[in-house]
Amino acid sequence: MAQRDRPRIVVVGAGFGGLWAVRTLAFEPVEVLLVDRRNHHTFFPLLYQVAAAEIEPEAIAFPIRGLLHRFPNIGFEMAEARGIDLEARRLETDGPPIPYDFLILSPGSVAHTFGVPGVAEHAFFLKSLDQAIRLRNHILTSFERAAREPDPLQRRRMLTFTIIGGGPTGVEFAGALAELIARPLRRDFPTLDFQEVRVILVEAMEGLLPGLPTPLRSYAAARLRRLGVEVRLQAPVEAVELGRVRLKDGTLIETGTAVWTAGVKGDPLGAALGRPLGPSGRVWVSPTLQVPGHPEIYVVGDLALPEELGKLPMVAPVAIQQGIHAARNVLRVLQGRPPQPFRYRDPGTLVTLGRNAAVAHVFGRAFTGFPAWLLWLGVHLLRLIGLRNRLVVLSGWAWDYLFYERVVRLILPMNDGDRRPIR
Amino acid sequence: MAQRDRPRIVVVGAGFGGLWAVRTLAFEPVEVLLVDRRNHHTFFPLLYQVAAAEIEPEAIAFPIRGLLHRFPNIGFEMAEARGIDLEARRLETDGPPIPYDFLILSPGSVAHTFGVPGVAEHAFFLKSLDQAIRLRNHILTSFERAAREPDPLQRRRMLTFTIIGGGPTGVEFAGALAELIARPLRRDFPTLDFQEVRVILVEAMEGLLPGLPTPLRSYAAARLRRLGVEVRLQAPVEAVELGRVRLKDGTLIETGTAVWTAGVKGDPLGAALGRPLGPSGRVWVSPTLQVPGHPEIYVVGDLALPEELGKLPMVAPVAIQQGIHAARNVLRVLQGRPPQPFRYRDPGTLVTLGRNAAVAHVFGRAFTGFPAWLLWLGVHLLRLIGLRNRLVVLSGWAWDYLFYERVVRLILPMNDGDRRPIR
Repeated sequence: MAQRDRPRIVVVGAGFGGLWAVRTLAFEPVEVLLVDRRNHHTFFPLLYQVAAAEIEPEAIAFPIRGLLHRFPNIGFEMAEARGIDLEARRLETDGPPIPYDFLILSPGSVAHTFGVPGVAEHAFFLKSLDQAIRLRNHILTSFERAAREPDPLQRRRMLTFTIIGGGPTGVEFAGALAELIARPLRRDFPTLDFQEVRVILVEAMEGLLPGLPTPLRSYAAARLRRLGVEVRLQAPVEAVELGRVRLKDGTLIETGTAVWTAGVKGDPLGAALGRPLGPSGRVWVSPTLQVPGHPEIYVVGDLALPEELGKLPMVAPVAIQQGIHAARNVLRVLQGRPPQPFRYRDPGTLVTLGRNAAVAHVFGRAFTGFPAWLLWLGVHLLRLIGLRNRLVVLSGWAWDYLFYERVVRLILPMNDGDRRPIR
Repeated sequence: MAQRDRPRIVVVGAGFGGLWAVRTLAFEPVEVLLVDRRNHHTFFPLLYQVAAAEIEPEAIAFPIRGLLHRFPNIGFEMAEARGIDLEARRLETDGPPIPYDFLILSPGSVAHTFGVPGVAEHAFFLKSLDQAIRLRNHILTSFERAAREPDPLQRRRMLTFTIIGGGPTGVEFAGALAELIARPLRRDFPTLDFQEVRVILVEAMEGLLPGLPTPLRSYAAARLRRLGVEVRLQAPVEAVELGRVRLKDGTLIETGTAVWTAGVKGDPLGAALGRPLGPSGRVWVSPTLQVPGHPEIYVVGDLALPEELGKLPMVAPVAIQQGIHAARNVLRVLQGRPPQPFRYRDPGTLVTLGRNAAVAHVFGRAFTGFPAWLLWLGVHLLRLIGLRNRLVVLSGWAWDYLFYERVVRLILPMNDGDRRPIR
């Protein structure tokens, strides 16, 4: 290739970290290749709304090639990263290996079951678009089945939805699900007795949303209860079984749906670095986000555990800031300057509780209710638009054109989506 | 049930025939139950555009309960019809059996392979939304794989798309696919050599679009060729194999994608009537659309083969007119009046050939090009809107409210969408 004399930076993962890393490298004198197993970026903060049938999957999925093809120095390859040949500096994939001069790893995280039996087999998850679609399909199908089920015990089980984990994902999903049931589904299923429908949120600790100020945590629990969610605190789960959840105190919840939002860990690709992993399977990196002994490899986002910084939350703002920072450090190194340590600017925390309510912890201030919800709305609209703006509108496209782009070229996850090998 | 003293009409299939049948029965003194294995109606005439990544699946899928819940006498059950107990007058399903006084069957049609070897195993189809999504995923994945494939023979095979069958579906899909490739994909894959991309349309007969006037058929072939489609006429297929299509004349087409649009036959449910089937597995019915010997059972749409009427095409207008007609006949019988024979009012034929071109055969007149395309656009917009209008706006909803309805409550087809049995 003509450009092969330029340094080649391979970025793994088209999540927030990877996308903002390649954006930072646009128009710089480097050759950039973004690698992801999917052909679209997923806007994770709104994934729970897909599962709660609030928005269609296309609204939060952006075809990567559409985001990138005005940047002449950025390429994309749809491939699954499977390992790293550290000596040869090659990323191993399900296709041909990909050589790199610099590697920025941003593969994100996966669900962490903490070894609780039955979770992997019987629970639903909310960590990817296909999982969200699967959960939505299952919820809607449960109502359809319940509508024709004469056995009241079976019917109640089908209509009991158990969410395990009272962090932001569990709380936001519980609120959205309660509202889906209270309005659209109640209207759709006039023959069902909605007294039989239950949404249960189970949390092992003494309160929801660990890490937030106590008044916000109390408000969140009270608000969810007002929406009809049964909030069970100090209720660690012993096991998830077929059709029920068993709590450590012996309680059995008969439930056709168990959603596991109780934990995440770093993507398994972290093991490819051949070094001992930190807590939650995350990769220890230097304050400059480099892998010790391999300064050509950077790790950002959920997978990264920077020394001396403490445990940063696995959220979009951290990934975005680290993606930008790692890319800038690569450019600095190429210019013969030393890489800079990463500093996190915490933009605060926002968690919705159904429509018109949220909790916000921003700039050291805590507030709740409608003002917090308005803030949440504004921030997320801004982030969604910002993503397109800075990546694409910046490169000269009109909004409606983009919209056309957005909706038409997705490889939506279907497990049998490509059922025949070509070879 | 309080309403059980009213006659119960069970309608199988929420396609055009079934939906227009239940609409005709709205607010009448009958109890109506619509049964479909899916929770949404699919607007089939635009299915090929989903496969060609022109529109998102949600644009042509309408949640059935959302369409019906303002009609107090119409219920819905998501169930798969598996048989009919003619004596007991019960529809057998994958759930509890459903008793009926009158039965309107509108299950539609399925692909017909005519026994050509390998079609069922290796070809893609365009008869349902999940098939269209699967085909779209496969096409986009083929380009992603080709972009990283060093072997030119493999790459050419991945980039060769073969459509078997020169009827309206094959012709419209070929045009849409050629345009997808010519513009969006060419921009998305700057490293690919688009000389290697081929779209081949294979037809056994001497021309495309059998049944239309010759000038329209010639125009269609010429137009597709201008779009870059290789049109091969008088080329019957001997077999579809893994990675290739074998023609009867011995030609081998190395192709990663074979799409079978060469034939349809009546839904297998027709066999449940226990009578010999007519051509293409369709059910012989009387001119009044009733099953001989079972005047309480009506068959409409693709599955119906009315005596004395000749073979009507398996298209939406026939299904809509028959659905309305069967429902009116049921009401007439309930009022003690004789059922009327069905008469088809042919609205004509419209087939698009990419953007800005189509062929039209309407009111005995044949025309082509941009005027025909405008007519196609108008008719389809009208039909789409008409469906909502007459079913839903008619019942008082605002358009934007509807739109919200439309996009949020679909059980999108995913084969593992509901992976766990509840029992």
